[in-house]
Amino acid sequence: MNANETADKVARAMLAAEGTGPAWGLAIEETREGYARVSMRLRADMLNGHGTAHGGMIFALADTAFAYACNSRNVRTVAAQASISFLDAAGEGELLVAEASEQALQGRSGVYSVTVRGDDGRIIAIFQGLSRSVGGPIIGDET
Amino acid sequence: MNANETADKVARAMLAAEGTGPAWGLAIEETREGYARVSMRLRADMLNGHGTAHGGMIFALADTAFAYACNSRNVRTVAAQASISFLDAAGEGELLVAEASEQALQGRSGVYSVTVRGDDGRIIAIFQGLSRSVGGPIIGDET
Amino acid sequence: MNANETADKVARAMLAAEGTGPAWGLAIEETREGYARVSMRLRADMLNGHGTAHGGMIFALADTAFAYACNSRNVRTVAAQASISFLDAAGEGELLVAEASEQALQGRSGVYSVTVRGDDGRIIAIFQGLSRSVGGPIIGDET
Amino acid sequence: MNANETADKVARAMLAAEGTGPAWGLAIEETREGYARVSMRLRADMLNGHGTAHGGMIFALADTAFAYACNSRNVRTVAAQASISFLDAAGEGELLVAEASEQALQGRSGVYSVTVRGDDGRIIAIFQGLSRSVGGPIIGDET
Repeated sequence: MNANETADKVARAMLAAEGTGPAWGLAIEETREGYARVSMRLRADMLNGHGTAHGGMIFALADTAFAYACNSRNVRTVAAQASISFLDAAGEGELLVAEASEQALQGRSGVYSVTVRGDDGRIIAIFQGLSRSVGGPIIGDET
Repeated sequence: MNANETADKVARAMLAAEGTGPAWGLAIEETREGYARVSMRLRADMLNGHGTAHGGMIFALADTAFAYACNSRNVRTVAAQASISFLDAAGEGELLVAEASEQALQGRSGVYSVTVRGDDGRIIAIFQGLSRSVGGPIIGDET
Repeated sequence: MNANETADKVARAMLAAEGTGPAWGLAIEETREGYARVSMRLRADMLNGHGTAHGGMIFALADTAFAYACNSRNVRTVAAQASISFLDAAGEGELLVAEASEQALQGRSGVYSVTVRGDDGRIIAIFQGLSRSVGGPIIGDET
Repeated sequence: MNANETADKVARAMLAAEGTGPAWGLAIEETREGYARVSMRLRADMLNGHGTAHGGMIFALADTAFAYACNSRNVRTVAAQASISFLDAAGEGELLVAEASEQALQGRSGVYSVTVRGDDGRIIAIFQGLSRSVGGPIIGDET
């Protein structure tokens, strides 16, 4: 299994194991080592009082892409810290896509940048996450 | 209507108008000018693959308390940026409480600190949000 | 030596050992366990092109107060991450005071909030730092 | 004057006008629209008590590259918020290089990522800044 196959299997195992991914209707678009792209279609139950995507859901999508990217080497890794800048609104029915890329990996720490875009490619939010590996695999050898 | 009554009415109006609050089972515990405390009981559909609270849901709860606090003066205010440090895990059935306090208000910008605690008072996460007022009221005079 | 005396000795030892504190003219105003207040008078070589305090110097002052606070238990601790919101400008000759308080301490991680104020008490910036202890003392027993 | 010439002139005008750039020995390595690379050699007065680069100086370098990048279109722009993750130490005499790239520009807000590297290319810190344009030019037409 090469690095990108591992990344893909890890992301799919994480999505299958978590309660949130199915609840939010997440779809894995692409994964590679240190990279993940995940999409989510905005539903009425994801909107704030202005009728636009709640910041919590935008973060949740970005955080998930971050999690798949930072676990992509099949070493169990958790989020220590994350920052997000909100740049534009998104409305019901719009498909949001979060693209997470590795910016640095140093010992047990990693930094990942995630860009969340709307249907038309405009940037909705920019997220940056700091991860810390805690050891142990996500998926077994035969998976 | 005094400042704390306004804060309370605004928070209740926001909760009633948003899709997320009911979907997440949020309860407003207390509101004051520049302050909000909001609780959420962790369900299976809020957990990550480790069976603990997904960072996205911890952020979503904190972000909601932040939103109620920064809109408490009935001036429409949005999140520009937020940062979160994840300190401990929380499990299914646990009641999380997010307490948002105003740290600074300067012109149209505000900074709010939010502490998210578990059942036993231990700190799950610390959140800091930067808000920007965009003008206009949340609730009308007669509300 | 009680906890607050230890905090004071650690901060003074750190200030004496670092190149930056003397270069920036830092003064320790007060220290306690998990707390430090540090001041710096703005000089011409600390200003940006607008003639106001450079964000780097505001951060540097806040980061120093954070360092003294998170090392206050005499366990060597480093900054993992920090976030800062800039709220107001400050000019040459103004005395900035940074006050760092512990928000959470969980295992080897800590979160500290730092408020930077100007001469008249207005808030210049709000900083939040995530620390990680690496072990070993700052000062010896007989110090 | 094309976009990259403008970026270069703006950065040089900012460096000439600020007290910090000369005090820190900053050198502009390259500028383009939405981009700046700036270097700084670590001196004894930039070190913390461990004899490594003070986080404040690492941030100050990154923040300067961010400032040159976000002002590169000759529209006066200030930092609203910044986050930094510290990944490795750097010692006296080492040349640090901060490279700032634009991640998003949306109305008056911009997000910039800055990577700070040491002599051997290893990553010392990752910085992310949120800017806000305040209008007016940095340099005049004839500059």
